[in-house]
Amino acid sequence: MNNTFGKNIGISIFGESHGAGIGVVMGGLPSGIKIDFDKIQSEMERRAPGRDKLSTARKEGDIPIIESGIFEGYTTGTPLCALIKNSDTHSKDYSKLKTHMRPGHADYTGYIRYSGYNDYRGGGHFSGRITAPLVFAGAVAKQILETRGIIIGAHISQIASIKDNKFDSQNLSAELFRKLLIKQLPVIEDSKISDMTEAIIKAKEEGDSVGGKIECAIIGIPAGIGNPFFDSVESIIAHLAFSVPAIKGITFGVGSDFASMSGSEANDEFIISGDKVTTKTNNNGGILGGITNGSPIIFETIIKATPSISKEQNTVDIENKKEVKLQITGRHDPCIVQRAVVVIEAIAALAILELNLSVTS
Amino acid sequence: MNNTFGKNIGISIFGESHGAGIGVVMGGLPSGIKIDFDKIQSEMERRAPGRDKLSTARKEGDIPIIESGIFEGYTTGTPLCALIKNSDTHSKDYSKLKTHMRPGHADYTGYIRYSGYNDYRGGGHFSGRITAPLVFAGAVAKQILETRGIIIGAHISQIASIKDNKFDSQNLSAELFRKLLIKQLPVIEDSKISDMTEAIIKAKEEGDSVGGKIECAIIGIPAGIGNPFFDSVESIIAHLAFSVPAIKGITFGVGSDFASMSGSEANDEFIISGDKVTTKTNNNGGILGGITNGSPIIFETIIKATPSISKEQNTVDIENKKEVKLQITGRHDPCIVQRAVVVIEAIAALAILELNLSVTS
Amino acid sequence: MNNTFGKNIGISIFGESHGAGIGVVMGGLPSGIKIDFDKIQSEMERRAPGRDKLSTARKEGDIPIIESGIFEGYTTGTPLCALIKNSDTHSKDYSKLKTHMRPGHADYTGYIRYSGYNDYRGGGHFSGRITAPLVFAGAVAKQILETRGIIIGAHISQIASIKDNKFDSQNLSAELFRKLLIKQLPVIEDSKISDMTEAIIKAKEEGDSVGGKIECAIIGIPAGIGNPFFDSVESIIAHLAFSVPAIKGITFGVGSDFASMSGSEANDEFIISGDKVTTKTNNNGGILGGITNGSPIIFETIIKATPSISKEQNTVDIENKKEVKLQITGRHDPCIVQRAVVVIEAIAALAILELNLSVTS
Amino acid sequence: MNNTFGKNIGISIFGESHGAGIGVVMGGLPSGIKIDFDKIQSEMERRAPGRDKLSTARKEGDIPIIESGIFEGYTTGTPLCALIKNSDTHSKDYSKLKTHMRPGHADYTGYIRYSGYNDYRGGGHFSGRITAPLVFAGAVAKQILETRGIIIGAHISQIASIKDNKFDSQNLSAELFRKLLIKQLPVIEDSKISDMTEAIIKAKEEGDSVGGKIECAIIGIPAGIGNPFFDSVESIIAHLAFSVPAIKGITFGVGSDFASMSGSEANDEFIISGDKVTTKTNNNGGILGGITNGSPIIFETIIKATPSISKEQNTVDIENKKEVKLQITGRHDPCIVQRAVVVIEAIAALAILELNLSVTS
Repeated sequence: MNNTFGKNIGISIFGESHGAGIGVVMGGLPSGIKIDFDKIQSEMERRAPGRDKLSTARKEGDIPIIESGIFEGYTTGTPLCALIKNSDTHSKDYSKLKTHMRPGHADYTGYIRYSGYNDYRGGGHFSGRITAPLVFAGAVAKQILETRGIIIGAHISQIASIKDNKFDSQNLSAELFRKLLIKQLPVIEDSKISDMTEAIIKAKEEGDSVGGKIECAIIGIPAGIGNPFFDSVESIIAHLAFSVPAIKGITFGVGSDFASMSGSEANDEFIISGDKVTTKTNNNGGILGGITNGSPIIFETIIKATPSISKEQNTVDIENKKEVKLQITGRHDPCIVQRAVVVIEAIAALAILELNLSVTS
Repeated sequence: MNNTFGKNIGISIFGESHGAGIGVVMGGLPSGIKIDFDKIQSEMERRAPGRDKLSTARKEGDIPIIESGIFEGYTTGTPLCALIKNSDTHSKDYSKLKTHMRPGHADYTGYIRYSGYNDYRGGGHFSGRITAPLVFAGAVAKQILETRGIIIGAHISQIASIKDNKFDSQNLSAELFRKLLIKQLPVIEDSKISDMTEAIIKAKEEGDSVGGKIECAIIGIPAGIGNPFFDSVESIIAHLAFSVPAIKGITFGVGSDFASMSGSEANDEFIISGDKVTTKTNNNGGILGGITNGSPIIFETIIKATPSISKEQNTVDIENKKEVKLQITGRHDPCIVQRAVVVIEAIAALAILELNLSVTS
Repeated sequence: MNNTFGKNIGISIFGESHGAGIGVVMGGLPSGIKIDFDKIQSEMERRAPGRDKLSTARKEGDIPIIESGIFEGYTTGTPLCALIKNSDTHSKDYSKLKTHMRPGHADYTGYIRYSGYNDYRGGGHFSGRITAPLVFAGAVAKQILETRGIIIGAHISQIASIKDNKFDSQNLSAELFRKLLIKQLPVIEDSKISDMTEAIIKAKEEGDSVGGKIECAIIGIPAGIGNPFFDSVESIIAHLAFSVPAIKGITFGVGSDFASMSGSEANDEFIISGDKVTTKTNNNGGILGGITNGSPIIFETIIKATPSISKEQNTVDIENKKEVKLQITGRHDPCIVQRAVVVIEAIAALAILELNLSVTS
Repeated sequence: MNNTFGKNIGISIFGESHGAGIGVVMGGLPSGIKIDFDKIQSEMERRAPGRDKLSTARKEGDIPIIESGIFEGYTTGTPLCALIKNSDTHSKDYSKLKTHMRPGHADYTGYIRYSGYNDYRGGGHFSGRITAPLVFAGAVAKQILETRGIIIGAHISQIASIKDNKFDSQNLSAELFRKLLIKQLPVIEDSKISDMTEAIIKAKEEGDSVGGKIECAIIGIPAGIGNPFFDSVESIIAHLAFSVPAIKGITFGVGSDFASMSGSEANDEFIISGDKVTTKTNNNGGILGGITNGSPIIFETIIKATPSISKEQNTVDIENKKEVKLQITGRHDPCIVQRAVVVIEAIAALAILELNLSVTS
């Protein structure tokens, strides 16, 4: 099955955690967009490992090399390839993983899917590391979208059982998004930072890990973007979101609450504000019938705890077909939610780029 | 943007609620699959309106006419087109909708997307009625999957605030799915039927509507189906699920609970059962790294209350750019969750067909 | 393999020669295009059989029924489905074809491809009749392109060994294309009509058939349409051209003559005409590097003689695996070149629609 | 418009002639194919410049670096990226090309398509150099196809007005293809080598260039590969062929001769040979109704003379909108036909890989 994403943009992600390099090719881009490399690099660093005591000790420069598609600082419109060479790889840490399938990981499913020929080192192509090129692509997409007035931000809405406030659809701004970026953990309600940090450190000490949720908002998006069958805004965002390892759920607007709300509660009444049609509330997360209504797009993703834990686990040896004990050594994060925030923003940007390029009438 | 779904299957849905006909073209099908038309028709009836007091009074035969792709009872392998002619259309009921945007519906977004040229009658191409061809396509997909031992079932897991039990991954069977089919409402715990029915009737009496959730399971699916970036099993199912009107969320396995579970709780340990590798628990809903692990695929969708309510609502007149009151007359369901069950099964079947046809190594 | 065409438009063709109906679904269309149904019907009649003594005696109304996608005379932008019911089918004529593979036809390859489940009657999905929906789709595409000033015409450039003049790139006009339409055979040089007619009648009398070539031109096309790897203008036109049964070759501009021309002869010098950059000659058929240069697009297709001939032929009985003699009865054309002219125009229109909708920068 | 090729394989080509690097990402590959890197390198060298007096003096190692998708010598099944760094670039040679549009090249169309933001140096993304990654991809595809018994070869069938013999469909073999590889020019009839060489040298001396034709054959291909509308074998091969710069025509089987052959001459009679159905002749180039019939696939491409000539030419200065004289300096080939042979084989291999992976019934 062909590995590319998009009818308008053609995104290909490649690479394995411990191979020569990882990267992305982006096609279908508009030409003439000025690219700010510093901004791209700061996006890369939001995801990069080894930044603080909450993350894995693996350090990677994660500096994308532009192989093509940018000339004299502007997109050419022809395919843009960015390559990130792998450097700080401790392959020996993973030798046991050739046979011992880590629970919660793709070791077993990858083994079956590729008849044992997959690169098992560090999860290979299934590694969270492969989201680095996604972040690069998202950073480029964001810059393209910004020229159209579309801005994206996200915050940690939950870690373990600690919940942040939700976005207030009426009070979203580039300013708010910037404020989130400089916090130790990107949450709306500052008082949650210490509780969340504590939960992560506790998990680390126990050789365990924690999951959470990330809420993302897209502002400045015009009405009329998206499609009914089959490429709704929700379809495209969800398709990309579920490409990100560890994402196990996505909801739009009030999400799970829709189940218990009546129609009269859930419907967003239309009003006229200035000379513009808008909605009084934004329960639907800016999307009706798969198409934007001009209110901010709001969605939340559910992220499972990283399956790499140092606690001993029961599993199987796939080559010898027997049950074994497994203790995962090597470096890994007790929580990847904070590093995933920029990844979620990236897939949001790519989804909107895909959709925004598609309007033809 | 091209309207088709699938890299392997090529599904096109067409039609408007009050146009001449609605239908579907399915490409990429295997040839030589015997089609049971009675089974297809009974699937169509699970979705069809006018079946009981809980549904809209609109009655449609919903009898698909096979225009192509089936010869002497077997799929030919060339594109299969099924057409459903519209008959019981009361177009006059909808004349006001040309200008008065129904809250929660796609009237406004469709108007903007298509510059006012969309067929507004009964929601046009955005109508829930357009799920009828999806159900047809799903019914065909199910029959193809059954030849490979893959079976799909679903139940209402919530209506308003009344929750059914969840599927028990260890006790899923074709027998269970058949039992669900003959209940008044397809729930696991029979005692919930009367509460749910009451909630729907109450909403109807109040001129309001209720939402809910549907949980779906796919059994008999082999390990090794799916892909990492970008066509994970979750991506493909979610992409199709969000094509269905009113779906606002999807979660896999334990879903929202993942956020608060630790890694050691969430990880499904691998065990050997007989000579087969399997998992002890199925928190991950049968999918790891975007690829099936051989356990049942389990997912849940969130369905918002149907936005068509007879209570008076505030909205805008799009032609005259002013705020107006709207009272929706015409026929509509107080709850579409029970009718959506077979739609969710259909998109599950189409997703697996898309993925199952794609395995090349 | 999914059966749809296009990244921007999503075209699905369905139907078998002797099934219930044939048709097309077109997605990704712009909304708000006024459709002239008389023009569509006159396009359908250019292809329809039974028009004169040169064609098969089969008569089909070939009247497309609009099932969806057009509302109050304008495209809605949602999928447009047109259905043509089959009526004048003499299925018994084809009963022997279940086993006796007609040379030059797809009987054998279809049998192998679909494991014998294909509809063999009249060629089934491989029948030239399936070009009727293509002509419909092309007629719609032409009307969309005309709103952008793009016009398409074609002529028979060869039948058997009789050659018409080639298009003169400097003297192409809508007027010329209209004149071609009303001739008995659409050729530039009227004197060729009688020779070509004679060649066709001679073939008919001998129970044989003749082939030929069709040259097509697209005028009013702006510069800058198309792509380098992989969706060049030539790639898209050729992809569609080779979907048409009996097409066995396509060349652009001076075509085969390129092989023996030197670079200095083949290069089209750029000149300034008025305030516009254009080329002095048009050897390259309006395309450089896969992208239009503003000169007319010119291409020629090679059409093999229709393989249905009444002369006795040697072939095999596929069920009984033995060599047999075959005498094809039933109705068939001694020449399909004149009927194929509008089909070639149709694929040209669809190709440009696909490309024109794709320009994003 | 997304830049990828294939529904089954997902090929992305990236790079500019004078950028950092060029390369390819291949998706949808089967896992577990052993890759012979020496064979790949010898394919690269068949295309590489600077090999003899007939080619450009530019020397490039053209050594592909495997970034991903191959592990311990076998394909992993996850995306394979190969990168070729650019080294021997004389960018100053091209400075004038920013404004002076070379006739016959994509300078002007690229300028318009990308609003002047394309990398103009050496043709940028339109450069023939970008076929190097295509050759790499083709070399991998060939190795995959060989495991299925499918072998591809090609020869120069014409240079300027000198024609080689055509392939004899009955006498094609891997042995013949190997013999072609070691000749000074890959032709069937050795006596043509000196005439062709002379024509090339004459053109070089005159500051001009010559074109030609390449005939390609695919043997060992089973019957039943391909599709009717829209992905015929011819469609897929032609789509890829017209992605290659300088290709201006493609014909299958007897090609242009089809126009003047009668049906009784053109039809290939079916016979039984051993216990196998085959055809007595192979006029149709192994394809009927868009699907292989088991005979060798044979096609021929028309290649225009390379437009880079040192003779002075008239053209325009695009920035200053005036007519100018242009004398192209820098390095270029008087004939690229001999270097294009392996490129044509590559696109044949990729086309068959795309199609062969798609058979589902």
